Amino acid sequence: MGADLEPGVRLKEIRSKCLTVTHEFVVARCRDELGGHRGGGFVADALTSFLAGGKFLRPVFAYIGWTCGGAESDAALRAAGSLELLHCFALVQDDVMDGSSLRRGKPALHRRMAQWHREEGLSGSPEKFGESAAVLLADLFLVWSERMLRECGLPAAALSRGWPRYDDLRAELAVGQFSDLVNDAGRAPGWDSVLDVLRRKSGNYTVRRPLEFGAALAGCGEQQLAGLSAYGRLVGEAFQFRDDLLGVFGDPRVTGKPVGEDLRDRKATSVVVLAAELADPAQARELRALTRLDAVEPADVRRWQALIAATGAPGELERMIGRRSADALEAVERAGLPDPARAALAELASSCTERAR
Amino acid sequence: MGADLEPGVRLKEIRSKCLTVTHEFVVARCRDELGGHRGGGFVADALTSFLAGGKFLRPVFAYIGWTCGGAESDAALRAAGSLELLHCFALVQDDVMDGSSLRRGKPALHRRMAQWHREEGLSGSPEKFGESAAVLLADLFLVWSERMLRECGLPAAALSRGWPRYDDLRAELAVGQFSDLVNDAGRAPGWDSVLDVLRRKSGNYTVRRPLEFGAALAGCGEQQLAGLSAYGRLVGEAFQFRDDLLGVFGDPRVTGKPVGEDLRDRKATSVVVLAAELADPAQARELRALTRLDAVEPADVRRWQALIAATGAPGELERMIGRRSADALEAVERAGLPDPARAALAELASSCTERAR
Repeated sequence: MGADLEPGVRLKEIRSKCLTVTHEFVVARCRDELGGHRGGGFVADALTSFLAGGKFLRPVFAYIGWTCGGAESDAALRAAGSLELLHCFALVQDDVMDGSSLRRGKPALHRRMAQWHREEGLSGSPEKFGESAAVLLADLFLVWSERMLRECGLPAAALSRGWPRYDDLRAELAVGQFSDLVNDAGRAPGWDSVLDVLRRKSGNYTVRRPLEFGAALAGCGEQQLAGLSAYGRLVGEAFQFRDDLLGVFGDPRVTGKPVGEDLRDRKATSVVVLAAELADPAQARELRALTRLDAVEPADVRRWQALIAATGAPGELERMIGRRSADALEAVERAGLPDPARAALAELASSCTERAR
Repeated sequence: MGADLEPGVRLKEIRSKCLTVTHEFVVARCRDELGGHRGGGFVADALTSFLAGGKFLRPVFAYIGWTCGGAESDAALRAAGSLELLHCFALVQDDVMDGSSLRRGKPALHRRMAQWHREEGLSGSPEKFGESAAVLLADLFLVWSERMLRECGLPAAALSRGWPRYDDLRAELAVGQFSDLVNDAGRAPGWDSVLDVLRRKSGNYTVRRPLEFGAALAGCGEQQLAGLSAYGRLVGEAFQFRDDLLGVFGDPRVTGKPVGEDLRDRKATSVVVLAAELADPAQARELRALTRLDAVEPADVRRWQALIAATGAPGELERMIGRRSADALEAVERAGLPDPARAALAELASSCTERAR
């Protein structure tokens, strides 16, 4: 897979190959496990189209990590692809827990299953059915992820270097979601606690762990691993800060999510918590009043956005994003990585931190 | 582990050793993954006490399967124990989906988490929090099960014989739950479809697959595997018929569940569906009327139980249980299994099909 390609083109190619191998795996699993079951065909369509909508960011990072020590390999593509199935699991379950009706601009999986329930004329509550079905289908993604890795075709020695990283990633994901749940339900969590969850859940999960996982599979040495870890931690945090900014200020036509979704959901994200810490007494009172509204109207969202902007939190986060991006590139320079990997990481740092969706 | 012990005593010993190794694993995981998180201590207590309440039926079957070809082994105990973690995952998630408030006579895990939410004075709905938290903790059980098996200490050759069985078991479990959901929501499923779900979900899952899994790990030959499969299918079905009878007629002081729980939940279990098929027109009308009640009072449950009894369904199921038990013992006799395993399987066949809880 052309290591001599222009970085943006090469990344697109990696994404597309990861999608292909993961899609093949899911199609085979649906055929073997769901074939002949009522609703099996509908579910197979829903799962494969859910998969196809993904950015495959984690597999791409894992594969770039792999190329720091290993040659181009279909087995490594499959190992990397397993992380996307883990991500599908997390998204489907998150949407159920958050009651999100949209994912990537389309009905969330639990909504699709509820709609199927209606069309089939089944009895009971379509919503309840949709939620239960989506949780079960998320379980399938979780189980398939591990199986895809186990059966990827890499030698046992490579796999045994990868499992501890995979286990950490998976555990941090579930425990991070749990802490998120507790934080969202806690009254006004502090910045430190938000940063901790963000590091464990998204920062590590999206960039650092996938990179380390791929590099460990390839048997990279200490110096390279340390460089990738530093890059991953910094870009991961910047990625999440951007995500949180988009959750409050993002353009719904671009993000595919309702405007100000994180505000409506009272999520304790970085920008929300930082705004609360930077607010003057009058702003703080108004922010608290908005948090306590029973129903949030469009005008409330606009007022809320303006207030958060006025505290200076978005500007501060932009500065933090910029600083992290620069430090990440420096860490990569010092790590002695192959040129194509370095170029790809630089490209990924921009696309993760400057994106609009 | 004394193969010369009286079968009942030996089975108790196996259960207790499986519990010990599984408990150790869960304690280590809670320490590494939940340590330092808000609620981590409470969750660790909740998960270990949930585990300790289990019958460990699946690990015991798996270990008996193992002893058909392998020597006593702590590694095999850990491999067997991994099935109990899978079972914990299924129970916790089932209770959320069914809205069951009790499990083994104690508050279900989602209720315990809701109670913790209240005691901590967190904001938002305690019920919603409890359900989301329980689904996430079920995920941990699912992930830990696979990890416990991978790290059990058996040689790679043994494990590679076990993985396909483990994967089948896990997939059948999730897909079986999904079919269950569809059946419960379908209008009056037929006996064939109920029998299919029952075979895939409980029949295979409780007895047959665990036995095959243990025997495969031990490298048993075709004849033994065939005998264990036949036994497992028959005892598994009988086990589930008994479970369904207890779900309608069980004594709540013994089962730890509300009286007539499956009726209140409109579950399409074997006894309910068979009663519908055997009912005369007048009985069928009355059964349908009960199914459509908005609220089920204790008097309705008693009337419902009497109606089902009057169709002859319970007697028919008792005959089916008896026939399956007898056929299972015959299959085991022909399979050329070691004496202690044969004795243990005979004992397990009675305890699974004659139990009151």
